[in-house]
Amino acid sequence: MSLLAVGSLAFDDLETPFGRKENILGGSVSYFSLSASRFHPVQVVAVVGEDFGPAQERVFEGRPIDLRGLVRKTGRSFHWKGSYGYDLNEAITLDTQLNVFQDFHPVLPEAYRSAPYLFLGNIDPVLQLDVVRQMIQRPRWIALDTMNFWIEGARPALERILREVDILLVNEGEARALSGEHNLLKIYRKIQAMGPRILVVKRGEHGAMLLSPDGVFVSPAFPLEDVFDPTGAGDTFAGGFLGYLAAHRSTDVDTLKRATLSGVIMASFTVEKFGTECLEMVTENDIKRRMKAFSDMIRVNGL
Amino acid sequence: MSLLAVGSLAFDDLETPFGRKENILGGSVSYFSLSASRFHPVQVVAVVGEDFGPAQERVFEGRPIDLRGLVRKTGRSFHWKGSYGYDLNEAITLDTQLNVFQDFHPVLPEAYRSAPYLFLGNIDPVLQLDVVRQMIQRPRWIALDTMNFWIEGARPALERILREVDILLVNEGEARALSGEHNLLKIYRKIQAMGPRILVVKRGEHGAMLLSPDGVFVSPAFPLEDVFDPTGAGDTFAGGFLGYLAAHRSTDVDTLKRATLSGVIMASFTVEKFGTECLEMVTENDIKRRMKAFSDMIRVNGL
Repeated sequence: MSLLAVGSLAFDDLETPFGRKENILGGSVSYFSLSASRFHPVQVVAVVGEDFGPAQERVFEGRPIDLRGLVRKTGRSFHWKGSYGYDLNEAITLDTQLNVFQDFHPVLPEAYRSAPYLFLGNIDPVLQLDVVRQMIQRPRWIALDTMNFWIEGARPALERILREVDILLVNEGEARALSGEHNLLKIYRKIQAMGPRILVVKRGEHGAMLLSPDGVFVSPAFPLEDVFDPTGAGDTFAGGFLGYLAAHRSTDVDTLKRATLSGVIMASFTVEKFGTECLEMVTENDIKRRMKAFSDMIRVNGL
Repeated sequence: MSLLAVGSLAFDDLETPFGRKENILGGSVSYFSLSASRFHPVQVVAVVGEDFGPAQERVFEGRPIDLRGLVRKTGRSFHWKGSYGYDLNEAITLDTQLNVFQDFHPVLPEAYRSAPYLFLGNIDPVLQLDVVRQMIQRPRWIALDTMNFWIEGARPALERILREVDILLVNEGEARALSGEHNLLKIYRKIQAMGPRILVVKRGEHGAMLLSPDGVFVSPAFPLEDVFDPTGAGDTFAGGFLGYLAAHRSTDVDTLKRATLSGVIMASFTVEKFGTECLEMVTENDIKRRMKAFSDMIRVNGL
């Protein structure tokens, strides 16, 4: 009954105004699985090179994260180098080395093909569709992340996979590029017509907006004194959001709202340290305490 | 027991991508009083020229808005001409004619000098202080709006009046300029040290953030399909926020949260049409209905 996640596993070099780190664990499924596994078991499909060793495996150990779908290839793992300015809103890509990711062709282990929940991380939409075709039964829901690179460069393939998708998670710019609309309520109607019935718009320091047939919800970000590194915030949000949904076996509007808060809270931990560091260390108690503080903050009594 | 508001009354020429209007009623106290008077009686202090006639007076008639503090001078009223691009976030000032506003020196009518609540709209901080000195007793609270022009050009006077202020309402850029900090929690500590114990940060399409000694609250904006003209949204927000506070005679955190929602809802009407048009027409029922929809939207059941 796992949540299956397909995406990238990478090593990142990160530069922010507050410091720099080299060769740290990154990629969408790292952040996603570390976040989602706090709520629900996760099965991972990704490709890694010979540089992915015991030190990296240890990060996932002792958690309900199934790595049997990890394909190990000769060569180096995907490598990304990025930097951020003071506003931390947009990463500047300094270098991308695809390495073993270049020929990534996800093949699902037998045990993965009946997963009831599927997250398609930001990879080529042709591969995302191929994953769906390997499922022996249609998952209860399929969630998808994508980016402008595919929206602009692979639109027919993206439109094809979107017809299979229940939940689309993108940022505001991506939602605009995909729909050709500016206003979020209009964007949602266009995207619904493409397939997804639920749209989650990730808004960085402004939180997230959920658009579902049963209503709209806007969550602020959790207010933090210090944000060090926004890398992985979006995938961490997706993990908290979808892990919560999978654990609660529902997509009614109240569950979707609480899932949005879970995503926001998990992302708030990620940005407090470099890479996956905070996500690795944070305790169940830390998560509960922050969720409680956040609930108190957004609750309006006496309405 | 009125809420006293001091600021500008103006005529505006507005251009947005959706149309243009000339010579329409504007200025901070127009928007403020039309919004606040939905919740609490307002007393207005401002200066107008001979162009302010029965047509303009009619806008305020039949509402609990006291215009005895309106000073009528020979000449033309303050005139502002501005335009907006498609994102509607920032106005470009095309022309400013101060006219009778040039020598504005607010003198409070006797009946105004014991108002328990005071809003100092965005005018010269020297004049804002002068208004406070005319009060025969200290109001229960004093709220203030300002802008970068005074933050950069009249800082000593602004710092002087801030020592008298309980509630500061500014946008994010102004809060940063005033405090020299980037992070909102750090900004709040700096601003508290200057005087105000409550900070409200107006965030346009992202709503508003409230920082008080008893907690932080972030309200999204009310999601709208069509935004025509953001002029006056900030003053309308201030009116809804402070009108609600005055009516409920409290600044506890729950009242402050509900006041924030009132401000956001009132501003959502203003931006739907040009100038004060929507604010003039909107019924009590419209306000209640939208407030109910907004409450349902932001409420998270089952937390």
